[in-house]
Amino acid sequence: MIIRIHFTEEAIVRPAMEFFSRETGASLEFLGVVRELENGSPLSGLHYEAYLPMATRRLEAHLADLGQLHRCDSVDFIHRLGWVPVGEASLWIRVQSAHRAEGLALMAKLIDLLKQDVPIWKLSPIEDQNGES
Amino acid sequence: MIIRIHFTEEAIVRPAMEFFSRETGASLEFLGVVRELENGSPLSGLHYEAYLPMATRRLEAHLADLGQLHRCDSVDFIHRLGWVPVGEASLWIRVQSAHRAEGLALMAKLIDLLKQDVPIWKLSPIEDQNGES
Repeated sequence: MIIRIHFTEEAIVRPAMEFFSRETGASLEFLGVVRELENGSPLSGLHYEAYLPMATRRLEAHLADLGQLHRCDSVDFIHRLGWVPVGEASLWIRVQSAHRAEGLALMAKLIDLLKQDVPIWKLSPIEDQNGES
Repeated sequence: MIIRIHFTEEAIVRPAMEFFSRETGASLEFLGVVRELENGSPLSGLHYEAYLPMATRRLEAHLADLGQLHRCDSVDFIHRLGWVPVGEASLWIRVQSAHRAEGLALMAKLIDLLKQDVPIWKLSPIEDQNGES
């Protein structure tokens, strides 16, 4: 399974479609976007930080495990760090597989593991709710 | 939920990213691609046919049901008909939702229903296996 993990401080530009095998039948993409409301309060954006060496190692280890469970051709992963305004993407993942079930399962589990077990944090700015400093 | 269903005889061009809500947090795309091997035999492509009025009605009905179960913002659906060569897409779907779980669930169920209960057929050409006419 081809694995490419990339972190960037720039806006995520979705890479052009690319196939690694004539047997790829399903290409699945996920874009995670910063929403305006967090716990009912409006945000202007989120700040993402990562402990990069460990984040990369954990992602590689999880993907090695997931690739044993769900046979896929490739996983491309891009995470944006730093300030991400509302409406822009913090995360892009593409999973390709012969059959859709494997790609859907790997994608769902990868995002769960990313949130639970990879050292990437999102920090909401403390918004001034009532005009007091 | 915004629903857009489109059939085309041209190559599928993935539409540009578009968000309908500041509360969209997950944009999921599926591309279904014609694979070279079908039951172990190499193909050059597949021919897709649909009974369009019923296909559209069934898709709309299934999406109305799925939208009740899994709250999503939008579903964009494009199916190619006619001859689709190996390595090209016959299907593209984009599902957007506030949270990824709803989008993943709707996407998976929609493709299952499409294969089981929507009048779109794929026809493999009869390849000449042994040189006889």
